[in-house]
Amino acid sequence: MGILIKNCNLISMAESREKYEPGMDILVEDKTITKIGKNLTTPENAEVIDAAGKIVMPGFINTHSHIAMSIFRETLDGYSLQDWLEKKIWPMEDKLTPEDIHDASLLSFVEMVKTGTVMANDQYFLPENSIRAAGLIGVRLMTTRTVFDLSNNPDKMLAEQEELIKKYYKGRCGYEKIYLNVGIHGLYTTGKDTVEKVVAIAKKYDVPVHMHFCENEQEVKDIKKNYGVESPVDVLEKYFSDVHTILAHVVKVSDEEIDRLAKLNVSVAHCPVSNMRLGCGIAKIQQMLDKGINVSLGTDGQGSGSNLDMFDSMKFAALLQKGEFENAGYMDSYEVLKMATINGAKALGVADEIGSVEEGKSADIIIVDLSTPVCQPVGNVFSDLVYNAKGSNVCMTIINGKVVMRDGVVEGCVLKTNYKKCADIIARIS
Amino acid sequence: MGILIKNCNLISMAESREKYEPGMDILVEDKTITKIGKNLTTPENAEVIDAAGKIVMPGFINTHSHIAMSIFRETLDGYSLQDWLEKKIWPMEDKLTPEDIHDASLLSFVEMVKTGTVMANDQYFLPENSIRAAGLIGVRLMTTRTVFDLSNNPDKMLAEQEELIKKYYKGRCGYEKIYLNVGIHGLYTTGKDTVEKVVAIAKKYDVPVHMHFCENEQEVKDIKKNYGVESPVDVLEKYFSDVHTILAHVVKVSDEEIDRLAKLNVSVAHCPVSNMRLGCGIAKIQQMLDKGINVSLGTDGQGSGSNLDMFDSMKFAALLQKGEFENAGYMDSYEVLKMATINGAKALGVADEIGSVEEGKSADIIIVDLSTPVCQPVGNVFSDLVYNAKGSNVCMTIINGKVVMRDGVVEGCVLKTNYKKCADIIARIS
Repeated sequence: MGILIKNCNLISMAESREKYEPGMDILVEDKTITKIGKNLTTPENAEVIDAAGKIVMPGFINTHSHIAMSIFRETLDGYSLQDWLEKKIWPMEDKLTPEDIHDASLLSFVEMVKTGTVMANDQYFLPENSIRAAGLIGVRLMTTRTVFDLSNNPDKMLAEQEELIKKYYKGRCGYEKIYLNVGIHGLYTTGKDTVEKVVAIAKKYDVPVHMHFCENEQEVKDIKKNYGVESPVDVLEKYFSDVHTILAHVVKVSDEEIDRLAKLNVSVAHCPVSNMRLGCGIAKIQQMLDKGINVSLGTDGQGSGSNLDMFDSMKFAALLQKGEFENAGYMDSYEVLKMATINGAKALGVADEIGSVEEGKSADIIIVDLSTPVCQPVGNVFSDLVYNAKGSNVCMTIINGKVVMRDGVVEGCVLKTNYKKCADIIARIS
Repeated sequence: MGILIKNCNLISMAESREKYEPGMDILVEDKTITKIGKNLTTPENAEVIDAAGKIVMPGFINTHSHIAMSIFRETLDGYSLQDWLEKKIWPMEDKLTPEDIHDASLLSFVEMVKTGTVMANDQYFLPENSIRAAGLIGVRLMTTRTVFDLSNNPDKMLAEQEELIKKYYKGRCGYEKIYLNVGIHGLYTTGKDTVEKVVAIAKKYDVPVHMHFCENEQEVKDIKKNYGVESPVDVLEKYFSDVHTILAHVVKVSDEEIDRLAKLNVSVAHCPVSNMRLGCGIAKIQQMLDKGINVSLGTDGQGSGSNLDMFDSMKFAALLQKGEFENAGYMDSYEVLKMATINGAKALGVADEIGSVEEGKSADIIIVDLSTPVCQPVGNVFSDLVYNAKGSNVCMTIINGKVVMRDGVVEGCVLKTNYKKCADIIARIS
């Protein structure tokens, strides 16, 4: 058993390896990368994959998403954000059934593995239905029962959040690719009592916290008012100093606040496409990277982020910094690839398992074919991946040693049926 | 003979038609769209194309490119623009042979038709070699012998420019899809004597002028110095008032200058990807549209624009305005589609021929298949095209009534051979 990938051009993203290694073989045994080298011997019964001329690299890690929101793709235009949420999305979400969440999540997971993403960090509700869909496709999923104070019973949410952790924590469900964190919607919607309880759960189970943070000006104002503070970072310093916190967006922060964030145990999940779509503005990502903050990439939900193709996120992440700050030297392409892979693994606390292609790590690998006119000739290969490749250039996605997408075909989902189900859901609840 | 496209979802972009018409048939006879309607009768010998569930729309028009620069794709990183040009590109360009220009252009034309573009506006040198390649693929090409004053003999260039027009003007070469304009590199590299001569040629042959304009701060300073003016727009008002001028970029202009541009006979070719890559900044496109300026889209050459996929240009055009000006209501998706199609046709003076799907116009049509997970379910179809579709979703490109790309396959070019030739060129001249 096992897989031998032959003769690939390896971009391992491991610090211990060269950035680009042509002509490499990679041996996968069971779930693990056991050997990387030239001209490896084919073990008995191994599947041999000829990757000559193709790129092998770690699969992408999407550190901020709302997985079941595939059905809300392109429903935003013509609405302000607040109107879209209040008049359109929230009334529709009230009508969603557990099976709807499953079917909508299934579409997102197919979208993910077809475009080279192996793991997502999710915030939504009824997460066990997304977990079930993740199992069908074979993707890694970090999820939570999101908590907030507004219009609901936070203690009930907290109990559900802890129950979910107990049930799935460290592979207890028998499905080892499910990870938990404790999600708070945001500090503008969650007060200090609930925050203290959430942080206690995070510490008890040693899981990260995941929240929206400083996405736009209004949110910053609301946090200041909600907590009576001068800066949203005051709240992080006071309540979140002992836990690792994944902050989605972080658009509206000052230079001084970035310096303070750099001293905290936080990762930033940069969602450039969503930030632009919602008119939030452009986060100071190069500055954060320069200060040593771990910045990863997220797509956000399809409602605002349009899709889960991390190639789009890489291209926007790179170009927004160069253009906005009028510095073509910003955002080295290899650093952008790190944001989409190993930095994501660090953000989610799974860098010992995935995020780079190296011996001993899980085989979460994508094969990318750059032989399309849009990518030829290949100049700087890292830049070709960031600026020209798209999800459609990914010809194989392997997760935990298993091929989950091959030449565009994903096992575990009949696409036509799923498309119809998703279209029917949005038609029914609209 | 002819083509009958059956049962498509039509986005014609014609002012006289609905924005979205499901279940339409389109009859193409010889080069022309002769009938649009429901349940059309199939003429004898016509090819029937089943487009059920697919989008039919006009092919894209790329209004600013440097077609032979495909070979310089992803050679920019690590250089400042000036160093890239002076130390890398210009010495390499000196070594290019006519056959190199042909082979590099061929790659670009394949890239264009595979991603749904039917016409490009080019500025480069040895243009007859690009014209030859355009003939092989069957694309429309507007081109010129670019003129500037620096380090060369402008009068020789002007003579070459006029010769080219004489040879190809109005189909004289027998190849009707070649169009000419008079290209000036820019006002910072071309003084008033040459400008006056160029404008005289434009008037004589009734062709537009094409130039770079206010791409970055340095260029604005250089124009002011070169012409002794307060504003680059002064030069346009003085010398270009009688001709239609296609201005590429237009990033660094004030609100007052936009008001003045709106009174001139100019079109703006917005190149958002290139502007970001080179750290130029973000043009005020929504403001220009609001003032009634005809804004179209361009990719620029692949050296700075990375590729010729107009879907990328649409997505960046839309999202940059929303994000930079923190207004999610900016850049209506249908308006963005107009920029990529009919506005481009207006910019190049070919709106009587192409840019919309309507009876009497040439059949320059693309068929787009949105049945990929990244595009499903289809919410607002215009937004789905702008934010989610990619060149790879285009399954057919028809130019002047002829199918030039079908299911990814382009006639007239053996891709593997062309890839190798282009890689060999860049290796040889590096």
